[in-house]
Amino acid sequence: METTIRNKQVILKHYINGFPEESDLMIVTAPDTMELKVKPGSSTILVKNLFLSCDPYMGTFMREPDSGSSEVAVETLSLLDAFIPGKVTTLHTQTNTWLQLAIVVNAFVQPIAGVGVSEVIDSDDPCFAKGDFVWGIVDWEEYSTVNSFGRFKIDISINVPLSYYTGILSLTAYAGFFEICSPKKGEAVFVSAAAGAVGQLVGQFAKLMGCYVVGSAGSKQKVDLLLNKFGFDDAFNYKEEPDLDATLKRCLPQGIDIYFENVGGKMLDSVLMNMKVHGRIAVCGMISQYHTETQEGIKNLPVVVYKRIKMQGFLAFDFIDRFPKYLEFVLPYIKERKLVYVEDIVEGLENGPAALVGLFRGQNIGKQVLKIA
Amino acid sequence: METTIRNKQVILKHYINGFPEESDLMIVTAPDTMELKVKPGSSTILVKNLFLSCDPYMGTFMREPDSGSSEVAVETLSLLDAFIPGKVTTLHTQTNTWLQLAIVVNAFVQPIAGVGVSEVIDSDDPCFAKGDFVWGIVDWEEYSTVNSFGRFKIDISINVPLSYYTGILSLTAYAGFFEICSPKKGEAVFVSAAAGAVGQLVGQFAKLMGCYVVGSAGSKQKVDLLLNKFGFDDAFNYKEEPDLDATLKRCLPQGIDIYFENVGGKMLDSVLMNMKVHGRIAVCGMISQYHTETQEGIKNLPVVVYKRIKMQGFLAFDFIDRFPKYLEFVLPYIKERKLVYVEDIVEGLENGPAALVGLFRGQNIGKQVLKIA
Repeated sequence: METTIRNKQVILKHYINGFPEESDLMIVTAPDTMELKVKPGSSTILVKNLFLSCDPYMGTFMREPDSGSSEVAVETLSLLDAFIPGKVTTLHTQTNTWLQLAIVVNAFVQPIAGVGVSEVIDSDDPCFAKGDFVWGIVDWEEYSTVNSFGRFKIDISINVPLSYYTGILSLTAYAGFFEICSPKKGEAVFVSAAAGAVGQLVGQFAKLMGCYVVGSAGSKQKVDLLLNKFGFDDAFNYKEEPDLDATLKRCLPQGIDIYFENVGGKMLDSVLMNMKVHGRIAVCGMISQYHTETQEGIKNLPVVVYKRIKMQGFLAFDFIDRFPKYLEFVLPYIKERKLVYVEDIVEGLENGPAALVGLFRGQNIGKQVLKIA
Repeated sequence: METTIRNKQVILKHYINGFPEESDLMIVTAPDTMELKVKPGSSTILVKNLFLSCDPYMGTFMREPDSGSSEVAVETLSLLDAFIPGKVTTLHTQTNTWLQLAIVVNAFVQPIAGVGVSEVIDSDDPCFAKGDFVWGIVDWEEYSTVNSFGRFKIDISINVPLSYYTGILSLTAYAGFFEICSPKKGEAVFVSAAAGAVGQLVGQFAKLMGCYVVGSAGSKQKVDLLLNKFGFDDAFNYKEEPDLDATLKRCLPQGIDIYFENVGGKMLDSVLMNMKVHGRIAVCGMISQYHTETQEGIKNLPVVVYKRIKMQGFLAFDFIDRFPKYLEFVLPYIKERKLVYVEDIVEGLENGPAALVGLFRGQNIGKQVLKIA
């Protein structure tokens, strides 16, 4: 194996204002070579990245952080911050097209980052050894020098696809559904973006709990998946429903006990009208609102008072101590094929920008993963 | 004492669309006489009403219930429903003014209702005896025939003003602050409508817990009360603050751990921008949104995800089992005058409509109570 490489990376070209586009990101090759060894005494770990997770929150990290709320923002995420645009210049070529060429002015230019699965190539940390597989936050690049903070060793004896650590094993669906919503048998559950990485699992968990579960998605193909593959009791294509309130009343005439929220906006407003007393809303995301010019205001919030609704935002990472318990719960279902898990795997770092921004147009079916090695 | 009377009542004249006005309510005298005795075998209790509570939610009961969401609404409140307008006609008099005269077409015309404190005049229920004092939901009228469901006997040995059972002893501030928000010493608390019935108590409870507490209110007089009587650390008149986000950043530069929500609208949107990670919002009410033609949409809800905010609506009645525990907590503070409680007491059933609708213009200072006997 070669011992020095020039690292390929995905960087943010500039902060975005509106919708993320593929052209907001670019692939660069680091100008300096990188030795595939850690420095003795550095306590660092050198990893080769294998799978990178594409997640909706990453779009929000492409915007300039609001300086006004910086005091509050500082403590928000301990592991991930808004992406830092790379210093790049563009050169006009003879063919009159724009060739985008990165000139890394700053040696510490930061790739974008997210959850990934990696293989340890070299380690100066006694807890990790060459050949270990790990998951945690990594930069979008071929090789990364990382530390042990928030890095978890994968037990390969568990014997599930490594990509599962970016999705089905990532606690999000479990934490939101079980920890935030405390479901009970027979309750009515509604899941938006139900064919996505998290929604598909929430729907199946709800069925395992004996709930009645309805999902929404953005295409006929996805609705078919919900009904025929994931076992939802009912499902609809929200793009073909002019009156979401009426749609929810049709699908859930008795009201909704649990709403697993992935989209926000009009859907949330309609759901609020249909929530039952003592309903619970796990707020996993509000993807419809991340990149709109003017956000849609939620008008029906006053109902949370008399319906005594609990709405709670969460990040899976806050529930990391439940990971062993979750594995104990979910692995038997995976092994016995009682849980279906659909991944949308794209290969090659160079296809990362398209895969990531495709999320915001709902192009993925199931969990969007980028396989880079 | 006379044994038959003609009962005076406050009824809703018609469903309202916009802001409640005094003229939407009227005082009527029942056409039939009422005997001040219960029917043997009826298990009922005849009470003379002494104090009636004026509460913001009562304004929402003056609107026609949304028939579309009736299946959901049915189970919402077990004790109280939207008010039913009385059948009244208006007669044109010689003086060319409108004299409003109630002709009670339906013998079962319903007065408006709310929490009240009453004295038992006669009882066919073995749990209640003549001379007992009780609190619970009663109609707005001089005498009511009620049953024991949701009716609580007052232990007069506790020796606090009877009106306190409509306010300081009603669990709302306690349930929202302690049960929903789980405050910790040193946390930053913000209370809107802080000079009102509930806000004044939340602020004082927060100080007792060792929190830093800031309140908002709608007049200089109320702000003075917050600072000089209730012991808030800081306070502002929201009507004089053009940029609520900036105001909150000035008063609470480190952000807000706990928001006790009474108003909704723009205030909530600004608070969301200033909430800290793992912040909690007890949603007691959203009075600014109850009677607007078009509700202000809340645009900053997506922050609940990365800040992991819990927002929870509640009604004090759900916490009724904590009542003994609450009395144990609060009575020593009342007796030792370590809790201040301001009531705005209006006398006479005929002044009830003005007192009730005054709430929606913030005319009350402290808890608005109607004393009728």
